[in-house]
Amino acid sequence: MAAIHNVTSGGLWMGRLSRGDDLLGAISVICRERDIRLGRVEAIGAVERAVLGYYRQQKREYEFFTLDGPHEITSLAGNVSLRDGEPMVHAHVTLSDEKGNVRGGHLAPGTIVFACELVIEAFRGPAFNRGLDDETGLPLWEL
Amino acid sequence: MAAIHNVTSGGLWMGRLSRGDDLLGAISVICRERDIRLGRVEAIGAVERAVLGYYRQQKREYEFFTLDGPHEITSLAGNVSLRDGEPMVHAHVTLSDEKGNVRGGHLAPGTIVFACELVIEAFRGPAFNRGLDDETGLPLWEL
Amino acid sequence: MAAIHNVTSGGLWMGRLSRGDDLLGAISVICRERDIRLGRVEAIGAVERAVLGYYRQQKREYEFFTLDGPHEITSLAGNVSLRDGEPMVHAHVTLSDEKGNVRGGHLAPGTIVFACELVIEAFRGPAFNRGLDDETGLPLWEL
Repeated sequence: MAAIHNVTSGGLWMGRLSRGDDLLGAISVICRERDIRLGRVEAIGAVERAVLGYYRQQKREYEFFTLDGPHEITSLAGNVSLRDGEPMVHAHVTLSDEKGNVRGGHLAPGTIVFACELVIEAFRGPAFNRGLDDETGLPLWEL
Repeated sequence: MAAIHNVTSGGLWMGRLSRGDDLLGAISVICRERDIRLGRVEAIGAVERAVLGYYRQQKREYEFFTLDGPHEITSLAGNVSLRDGEPMVHAHVTLSDEKGNVRGGHLAPGTIVFACELVIEAFRGPAFNRGLDDETGLPLWEL
Repeated sequence: MAAIHNVTSGGLWMGRLSRGDDLLGAISVICRERDIRLGRVEAIGAVERAVLGYYRQQKREYEFFTLDGPHEITSLAGNVSLRDGEPMVHAHVTLSDEKGNVRGGHLAPGTIVFACELVIEAFRGPAFNRGLDDETGLPLWEL
């Protein structure tokens, strides 16, 4: 059964990251510095390299793989919530190469920004805390 | 010519679906239960299997195909409007596999959630009713 | 270092484009006609053909390629800001074919709409002007 909460807008931010930034790390820093504890994030841009994850649902573990070389960020969609009381960004990306071929997955540390334009919308609402979900082995919201 | 209407925000919801939910069906139920008749939806997560559609523009019919096996939901983007007076969710998804390869299309019933985190924003505005569009054969908004 | 500004919501628009429209051009016209000078845009739908770009980070130039034939728009994510004082839409797309294979990149003129449903949210905030960025060779925001 779905667990859904009503939230309200708590502020909007728009801007860009810098070349060489760690994509996931830089978004996380922005959220912590502005005390964004709940929200959504979206971005487009390009990366110099990427590290992405895929969750092995049977084995219950993430596998990570690296995309060496420049890619466009065709989409970055994610959310902000709390893990161990600190803002945590969970984002998925799709990336395209020079032929337009697209790869994607769970955004991991080690993905390096070439250019990135993003929008973050903060929400006000109940605390969205992540804790281990027995059903999936993932750190899901305890709602 | 484009047909665009000014709308206003009518509420925000954030939460998660459960393992085993039908992805499209569960979002539709959320919208109906909360009387969301116009809006946007976005999500990330993972599915156990997927059924996606592709519209044959010449033949004017959808073809559906199944992706067996677990995939990350790298993006889900969609909207909520009315068909026959009831809230209808129209969404497109991209999904990635263990190598990061991405497949995508029109989200159809039969796509089973492993984990899914979503944001729905309701809009207030004129009625967006879907009806058969002669130009395309699709159920588009009669604006 | 990231350059991020606080913005506020400045209006929402939802609607559809028409068959035969140039996808990027039509969104740009909507923004200019409504004086949307800052914001975000998202869309789903289908195209009859597409022209996409990939930025050669070493050579510092865009390469463009054409996808002939119908594709679903699995995602379109973008923003609106100013270039030479005029609203400019920067968007990236992913597109799927009849087998669900996905291609993507920087949305370029020449991408022809079959059907397209979009949401544009205008923001109020400081001017986001694009100017040549020495670090990347791209027209980035001078914040």
